[in-house]
Amino acid sequence: MGNPTQTSEKRTTMSNVAVIGLGIMGLPMAINLVKAGHTVTGFNRSQDKIDKLVSEGGKGATSIADAVKDADVVITMVPDSPDVEGVVSGEEGVFANAKKGTLWIDASSIRPDVAKRLSDEARDAGIRPLDAPVSGGEQGAIDAALSIMVGGDKEDFDAASDVLNAVGKTIVHVGPSGSGQTVKAANQLIVAVNIEVLGEAIAFLEAYGVDTDAALKVLGGGLAGSKVLDQKGQKMLDRNFDPGFRLALHHKDLGIVTSAAREANVAVPLGAVVAQLVAATVNQGDGALDHSGLFKQVLQLSGRK
Amino acid sequence: MGNPTQTSEKRTTMSNVAVIGLGIMGLPMAINLVKAGHTVTGFNRSQDKIDKLVSEGGKGATSIADAVKDADVVITMVPDSPDVEGVVSGEEGVFANAKKGTLWIDASSIRPDVAKRLSDEARDAGIRPLDAPVSGGEQGAIDAALSIMVGGDKEDFDAASDVLNAVGKTIVHVGPSGSGQTVKAANQLIVAVNIEVLGEAIAFLEAYGVDTDAALKVLGGGLAGSKVLDQKGQKMLDRNFDPGFRLALHHKDLGIVTSAAREANVAVPLGAVVAQLVAATVNQGDGALDHSGLFKQVLQLSGRK
Repeated sequence: MGNPTQTSEKRTTMSNVAVIGLGIMGLPMAINLVKAGHTVTGFNRSQDKIDKLVSEGGKGATSIADAVKDADVVITMVPDSPDVEGVVSGEEGVFANAKKGTLWIDASSIRPDVAKRLSDEARDAGIRPLDAPVSGGEQGAIDAALSIMVGGDKEDFDAASDVLNAVGKTIVHVGPSGSGQTVKAANQLIVAVNIEVLGEAIAFLEAYGVDTDAALKVLGGGLAGSKVLDQKGQKMLDRNFDPGFRLALHHKDLGIVTSAAREANVAVPLGAVVAQLVAATVNQGDGALDHSGLFKQVLQLSGRK
Repeated sequence: MGNPTQTSEKRTTMSNVAVIGLGIMGLPMAINLVKAGHTVTGFNRSQDKIDKLVSEGGKGATSIADAVKDADVVITMVPDSPDVEGVVSGEEGVFANAKKGTLWIDASSIRPDVAKRLSDEARDAGIRPLDAPVSGGEQGAIDAALSIMVGGDKEDFDAASDVLNAVGKTIVHVGPSGSGQTVKAANQLIVAVNIEVLGEAIAFLEAYGVDTDAALKVLGGGLAGSKVLDQKGQKMLDRNFDPGFRLALHHKDLGIVTSAAREANVAVPLGAVVAQLVAATVNQGDGALDHSGLFKQVLQLSGRK
C-alpha cells in the first residue's frame, strides 16, 4: 500500500545547537536538548553553569564565537533587549561568527520593535531569525513543557521544529518577525492582571471571613477559573512568594507592553494600572519575589497582612 | 461484610420544590429539578414561563403563597436585591407562607449584606436560609452544570444537597449566611477583569497584525490561559456579542463588589477601573450585549473597529 520510500512518520533531525545564556531558563532548555539527542554547546558569563551543562552531556565554549562557529541552530536566552543586542551584534557576536544559513532562535522576552530590527540585521548577515519567547516558567523549562510563541518566516519555523519540540509543548507560529514578542507581551499583560485581580478577590474574601479554600475551589470551577488561580491561589493564601518568575522581570515586561500599546494606539487601562502596581511593589524592594507577590501590594493598600 | 442495614450508596430524597422566578436561569433549573424526579411548582410574573414549566412536567402556581405552601424547598431566582426582598417579605411573601422548617435557597446574585439580613429574617420566621448564587450562565443552567457557592448553616447545606445536585456540578459550602454572595461578588470581579484584559490583549495583537487564532491558542496553553479566554476569545475575534450574560447584570454585580469591598476596607484598583469601563459601556447603550461586549469599549478607546 503506497510508496514504501514515503512514510507518514517524521524523522527527527539532530542538530548542532549553541545555547547562549544558561540561566534559570536557558540551562534546563539546554539539558532537554541534550536529552533529545542534539549536540549542545553552551556559553554563559559564569563558568559554573557551563560546567553544569557539561556534566549533563553538553559541551562548553570559551566565547560566543566559539559556541556558534559549528552550530546549525543558535538559541539565545538572556534577560532583556540590550542583552540580546550585546550577544548577537559586533565582532564577537552571533551574527559575525555563525555560518550562513544558521537558524537563530531568540527565546528571550524583549521589545517587539527590537526583535524586528535584530531580525532584519540577522537576515542581512545571512542568518535566519526566529523570535520565540516562552511561557511556563522554570518548571515548564525543566519539564520541556513550555509554550513557545514564534515570529519569523514559516519555513524557518518548520526547520526549527525538532529543536523547539525538545524544549516546549505548545509551539505556535504567530506571524512575521516580532510577532512572537508581541504575543509574549500580551501574555505578560494578561498574567499580571490575572494575578492582581486574584489578589484583590482573595483579600476581599479574607476580609469577609469566607472559607477561602472552598471559595477558590468553586471559583476555579466556573468562568473565573484560570491557570493563575490554579497556580498562584494557594501561594497567596499561604503568603509564600518564593520565585518562580520574579516581579522585577514582570516589571520589565509591563514596560514593554505598555510602551508597545502606546506605540500602536491601543488603550490598555487595566494594563496601565497593573504596571503601576507592579512598579510600586518593585520600588518597595520586592522585585525578587515571585510575581504572585503582587498580592502583598493589595494587602498593603487594604491595611491587611 | 459489614452491616447490611448500612450502605455506602446515597439514596436521593425527592422533595416538593417551589421555584420563584422562571427566567433565563430559573426555568432551566426548574426543568432539571423535574428531570431529577422532584415535584416542582413554579411561579413567575409572566404566565408563559409557567406554561413552559408545566409542559415539561412541572406544576404552575397562581401566587407565591400558592407555590410555597406545600414546599420542602423554595428556590428564588430573581435579578437583584430588591427583587429578592419583594418575593420573600410581606404577607404575600415566602417567609409568611412557607411551612416552618422549609429550606429557602436564594440562587439570585445580590448584595452580601442584604443576603445576611434576609437570612436573619428567614430564621426569625422559622425558615432555613441558604444564599446560593450560581456561575455558569444559561448553558450551565441548561446542562445542570452550574457552580454553586453556598452560604448558611452546614446542616442546611447538607439537607439541600439533592436539590442542588440536580441543577449544579461544583457545589461548595463557603461559610455562614452571606458568604455565598461574597464569593459570587469575587467571581464577578475576576470575570469582568479577565474579560477586559483579554480585550486589551486582543486589540493589541490585532494592531500588530499578529495571527490572532494562533496567538489565542498559544496564550491558552500557558499561564495566561483561562475559562474567559476559552469561552470569550473567539466571540471577540468575531465581534459576536450575543448574550450569554448581559453587561447590564454584570454592571449591577460590579456595583455590589466595589461597594462591599469599600465596606470591608479592601482596595480593588482593577475592580474599580473595570467597574467604570463596564458602566461606560452600559451608559452608551450596550447593556443588552454579552459581557464580552466590553471589548467594544477597548476598541472605541483605541479608535479601532
